[in-house]
Amino acid sequence: MDNVRIIEVKKSVYANNDLEANKNREVLKAQNTYLMNLMSSPGSGKTTMLVSTINRLKEKLKIGIIEADIDSDVDALTIHQTGVKVNQLHNGGSCHLDAGMVMSGLNDLHAEALDFVVVENIGNLICPAGYDLGQNLKVMILSVPEGDDKPLKYPKMFQSTDVLLISKIDTVSVFNFDFEALERRVKKLNPTMKIFKLSALTGEGMEAWTDYLLESVKKWRESNG
Amino acid sequence: MDNVRIIEVKKSVYANNDLEANKNREVLKAQNTYLMNLMSSPGSGKTTMLVSTINRLKEKLKIGIIEADIDSDVDALTIHQTGVKVNQLHNGGSCHLDAGMVMSGLNDLHAEALDFVVVENIGNLICPAGYDLGQNLKVMILSVPEGDDKPLKYPKMFQSTDVLLISKIDTVSVFNFDFEALERRVKKLNPTMKIFKLSALTGEGMEAWTDYLLESVKKWRESNG
Repeated sequence: MDNVRIIEVKKSVYANNDLEANKNREVLKAQNTYLMNLMSSPGSGKTTMLVSTINRLKEKLKIGIIEADIDSDVDALTIHQTGVKVNQLHNGGSCHLDAGMVMSGLNDLHAEALDFVVVENIGNLICPAGYDLGQNLKVMILSVPEGDDKPLKYPKMFQSTDVLLISKIDTVSVFNFDFEALERRVKKLNPTMKIFKLSALTGEGMEAWTDYLLESVKKWRESNG
Repeated sequence: MDNVRIIEVKKSVYANNDLEANKNREVLKAQNTYLMNLMSSPGSGKTTMLVSTINRLKEKLKIGIIEADIDSDVDALTIHQTGVKVNQLHNGGSCHLDAGMVMSGLNDLHAEALDFVVVENIGNLICPAGYDLGQNLKVMILSVPEGDDKPLKYPKMFQSTDVLLISKIDTVSVFNFDFEALERRVKKLNPTMKIFKLSALTGEGMEAWTDYLLESVKKWRESNG
């Protein structure tokens, strides 16, 4: 798989993450590249949702993906099959990415030639919430099997994110998941959070989500450019 | 709910976790109290599995539970309904517990009067792997909806844990989960890891797991004194 490069990245001891994130923002603005930070628990279906999103947008946008994991390149190989540019960050065991790591990924992708880049963050509902990567949009996934009580336990993630994708809704008959209770808990923490319910497997809800995303990318690129 | 106390715990800046964990071990040995550290992703079903385990063992052992979350006390309230002693740690937003936090929980429970204590760690497959709590047994849960590729992505957790509970096996018809592939990946990382497949919902596999656990607790307590 010669098209998936693995990049070993380390936290810089001296780096101020907010400064690095601001640098990313400046560089991305100058390149007119829109950056989305995708976060969730392990196993919530980030990669599957991403593949479905890519396939719906890849004729309309030049897309690149930065995969991040402590180990392995299974997700990058999956993304590679969609035909978009992808690389894989290994971050030395840390529970989140920082802005400097993301800049390494962007440089490797030659993001200046891309319209839209997604960083698939480390699977974790805690650490990534505190790290600005210089993104335009913070998106989190909560899958139905994880349960509707998660905003109670991981409030910071729900507070600091722009969009919530409730995924694997095709499995709702198997799990005791109360959408109304979930939305009530989310809105209490983050009244402006945008919520989409979807299943990457059946395709339900994918169009509303990708329409929203395409519109967001286009709007920003036009206002920027 | 006057029986669920919430304890705010903070990481001690000066603490050496390994020294603190050794202290916990000494104290627990002197008290003849067996400690289990339970870890997993958010939403893998730790609390549901724990309730089912407690109900099968509570007539045979004096049990106490230490719940840990960044926020809320929903899990402690659920455990409270089983009738065993429980408290709730809030750890100030950290992605793991340390040994000093657990000692606060043990003291609050009066663990000297208990045979068996479970710490339900923060929902996370990364940070808790690196922190010895002074436990006798490290147990992790991987739920079927999370997928069989998790050992590839979170190797340290699988390497450093004694027992793997594969949970929610009643949902296997809905998810593409390859038990053989999972076991092959696990055994490569941790050849002595003990694996149980179970569903707290249907009860399948629960007896083998709780028999093993009861035997482990009894053996240690007898050898100890």
